[in-house]
Amino acid sequence: VRHAVILAGGSGTRLWPASRQARPKQLLPLGPDGEALLHAAARRIQLEVGPRIVVVTADAQLDGSRLVLGDLAAELIGEPAQRNTAAALGLAAGLLAARDPDAVFAALPADQHVADEPGLARAFAAAYAAVERDDVICTLGIVPTRPDTGFGYLEVADAQARAALTVQPVRRFVEKPDRATAEGYVAGGHHLWNAGIFFASARRMMAELHRYLPATAVIIDEIVAAHVAEGPAAGQAVARRRYPELASISIDHAVMERTDRVVTIAVDVGWDDVGSWAALPAVRGLDASGNTTIGVAIVVDGTGNVVVSDDDTVIATVGVSDLVVVKSGGAILVLRREHAQDVRKVVEALSARGLARYL
Amino acid sequence: VRHAVILAGGSGTRLWPASRQARPKQLLPLGPDGEALLHAAARRIQLEVGPRIVVVTADAQLDGSRLVLGDLAAELIGEPAQRNTAAALGLAAGLLAARDPDAVFAALPADQHVADEPGLARAFAAAYAAVERDDVICTLGIVPTRPDTGFGYLEVADAQARAALTVQPVRRFVEKPDRATAEGYVAGGHHLWNAGIFFASARRMMAELHRYLPATAVIIDEIVAAHVAEGPAAGQAVARRRYPELASISIDHAVMERTDRVVTIAVDVGWDDVGSWAALPAVRGLDASGNTTIGVAIVVDGTGNVVVSDDDTVIATVGVSDLVVVKSGGAILVLRREHAQDVRKVVEALSARGLARYL
Repeated sequence: VRHAVILAGGSGTRLWPASRQARPKQLLPLGPDGEALLHAAARRIQLEVGPRIVVVTADAQLDGSRLVLGDLAAELIGEPAQRNTAAALGLAAGLLAARDPDAVFAALPADQHVADEPGLARAFAAAYAAVERDDVICTLGIVPTRPDTGFGYLEVADAQARAALTVQPVRRFVEKPDRATAEGYVAGGHHLWNAGIFFASARRMMAELHRYLPATAVIIDEIVAAHVAEGPAAGQAVARRRYPELASISIDHAVMERTDRVVTIAVDVGWDDVGSWAALPAVRGLDASGNTTIGVAIVVDGTGNVVVSDDDTVIATVGVSDLVVVKSGGAILVLRREHAQDVRKVVEALSARGLARYL
Repeated sequence: VRHAVILAGGSGTRLWPASRQARPKQLLPLGPDGEALLHAAARRIQLEVGPRIVVVTADAQLDGSRLVLGDLAAELIGEPAQRNTAAALGLAAGLLAARDPDAVFAALPADQHVADEPGLARAFAAAYAAVERDDVICTLGIVPTRPDTGFGYLEVADAQARAALTVQPVRRFVEKPDRATAEGYVAGGHHLWNAGIFFASARRMMAELHRYLPATAVIIDEIVAAHVAEGPAAGQAVARRRYPELASISIDHAVMERTDRVVTIAVDVGWDDVGSWAALPAVRGLDASGNTTIGVAIVVDGTGNVVVSDDDTVIATVGVSDLVVVKSGGAILVLRREHAQDVRKVVEALSARGLARYL
């Protein structure tokens, strides 16, 4: 049976001040019409799996996640500590495998935007089918639209094979490249963005985890056994005790880059990672003056700005372009759009100056 | 007897969003240690005149002005409408002349910064003395420190005659010049900034007003007569009826540029008009990183910024320089420091979009 696992464990520092420790970016109403990214992720996969959605998130974000999901049915699993995607995904896969020996699942990040949802649905169906047919781990590879240095890439025989939803082997996982390398990838036709979206059977995923990350897999089995035998509270109790021992490693590093079972389907569905404020125009679009605004904004003589206000505070800019200006809660951020990653410098400075109340 | 008249009628649009219609810039705590500019103006002249200070302001700003003046004794006169400086100054001069035939007064704008207060006090004393001796109208001319195109200039024989507090005739009042002309003025040694600070006897000022602006002078006499004979409320009642008929003209255009009695004393006292956010560094100084901040500010990798927060909202900037970022009340302003005058474009845009509640 088809399931989905949404990984919603991000802390979202790069969307400060809107994202805070207790309110990560996937819970923010950043999508078109103010939809939260987590809600969008669940809504898109719900068409394929109905209520068989597991959302793995931090214990502290369980309430917020439930609130944001609203009417969308999903089982929420809280992690007592942040241990990267191998642990989070493994926990969900272990639970699915224990309950349904034939479970196949889609693993989906909670903080992405997709413009072409029908196209994505077709890719979902093809990927589930590939897993059910060949017991592979099937990723979706995004046809790159720019030489982005913020993503990992998948090396394949033909990055343009998207029309037919062709399944092809992944030759190699490539780490975030430098600019020149990324330009070569986009021009060369052999590389796809690694969006972190993949499909596998739960049983296969647990087998791979036991092979490549055995100590973590054993602890996951222990948590899952308690959860299945004695209920969620028992599973949580074991998790609280054992989570610190889990390896903090991504599922890509732990499994995907090492197994020979990974295939991909190239897709071109208007996908983007909402990793920083610079990505907001891709999600929300531009107004007539070429700016992206949320809230009451007055942009005079400027273009390419991202202006966000979380309440009725008006933000007025004059004669500036390509700036990010965000007001959220008791904090305001101003930086150049091309340096949107530098939000972390603010977070570091606030910590260093004893101003953690703003984080 | 020596008096002072502080003209505090400004609306302060250029310091939006800190200045609002009901809270003009002279009432803002922008000075060092958070002193309001109106308070600083009164405090500086109090050393010369004690409590003999008249503050002319808008009716709507009487309460705010009283609050800001605190312990400083002053008589506040409210204007029922804004009618520029000839009317405001005339009203105060008329009152002083009616009460004290020998009154001489200093006319002082309420929105200026002076770094060298002892130097200013010496200039005040010299100017009062010149008026008492020669019945002249004595301005203070500021030795220009940059080719500013935002000020009018006074043309004199020797703009460098500041050491001796020499009194010299003003040959000509010059309107705000263009950039090239201003550069010539600074290099040429014959021009001083017109700071709007001048001294005269009350009787002389009323005589000049009657000569050059007779209709307005007659109405002022009428208001003053009611005020002196029947009390402030009677004066206010006449003012409310007659103020709309007063000419809306500056005292410079109405009198100073036309009479042959104007002399000046060149001074170099660290004076600056706090006309826009760009002037704040002159008033508040720079921190170690070359920025001027009020409130909780985190400036990373940037210099020359003016960052102002009116409450505990933190403002964080990364990698931007020479920007103005101001949060005040429910509004945030971002613009380049060299375009600080363009605040008016925001005010216009807010009006045009029906957002007058932010003004």
